[in-house]
Amino acid sequence: MQLHPAEKVVVITEKLIVKGVVEIIEAAGAKGYTIIAAGGKGSHAFRATSERAAVVDDFSDVKIEVVVNDKSMAEAIMTKITETYFTDYSGITYIEYIEVLRPSKF
Amino acid sequence: MQLHPAEKVVVITEKLIVKGVVEIIEAAGAKGYTIIAAGGKGSHAFRATSERAAVVDDFSDVKIEVVVNDKSMAEAIMTKITETYFTDYSGITYIEYIEVLRPSKF
Amino acid sequence: MQLHPAEKVVVITEKLIVKGVVEIIEAAGAKGYTIIAAGGKGSHAFRATSERAAVVDDFSDVKIEVVVNDKSMAEAIMTKITETYFTDYSGITYIEYIEVLRPSKF
Repeated sequence: MQLHPAEKVVVITEKLIVKGVVEIIEAAGAKGYTIIAAGGKGSHAFRATSERAAVVDDFSDVKIEVVVNDKSMAEAIMTKITETYFTDYSGITYIEYIEVLRPSKF
Repeated sequence: MQLHPAEKVVVITEKLIVKGVVEIIEAAGAKGYTIIAAGGKGSHAFRATSERAAVVDDFSDVKIEVVVNDKSMAEAIMTKITETYFTDYSGITYIEYIEVLRPSKF
Repeated sequence: MQLHPAEKVVVITEKLIVKGVVEIIEAAGAKGYTIIAAGGKGSHAFRATSERAAVVDDFSDVKIEVVVNDKSMAEAIMTKITETYFTDYSGITYIEYIEVLRPSKF
């Protein structure tokens, strides 16, 4: 099988807003996403628990990953989530360049 | 220390088949792998729970990561897992290009 | 919004040493980090549980991710963690090149 370039958007933010973030991802046309429980400290971490950051099991954040096959869709998701949520909520978003086997899946 | 190029294979699929996926990874010669609990929606998500996707704690999927120091081994793992499982089970796989400190570890 | 290049350092190691790893990350000047529970097998996995590797819920490892906007800081974090811990503890570290929207956050 052949590898094809694709994009992965990563969003790390408060668990509290995961529904809204997922709605933006789906409205942009992405075919799927992955959600992972996370903890931590910094601009992506829920402020009120940041002092307990070294407590690994304190997972009040989520890491959401979206693989897409369209860089403009990736950028639209990142921009919309940042503009909608990251003034009032903690969060970061970044893009990684990956390669996939079956581009029609994304 | 010096950085050396390496490959990371990522597989996101149903928890149900994790043992078989790990067997393929080990048979290919990879020296290790990481498993993370995941939820989500899309072609990588367990179909029966996809409607509950926004429920973050519904982790019926796994994200498996394998760092290797050999692109042909990476591609062999991706192809074998896709051909063995992804007709009957939900799943995606992709490759990322990374850099490691101690290439002999992989 | 515009994308800017940045670096992501990933550390996968035993849960036991997460506090020390986080102290190195903070001392290096990183503004935040993310912690995710992980299991697995290999040079990053807690030796005593490696035979139970296929048991997904056996999460005695952690995956720690640090986004920085400075490659020399990234390399310093990787080197310090490797030199401090990876003789006596299991662990791997690697770097990925990403792009972020708001570089001043990192």
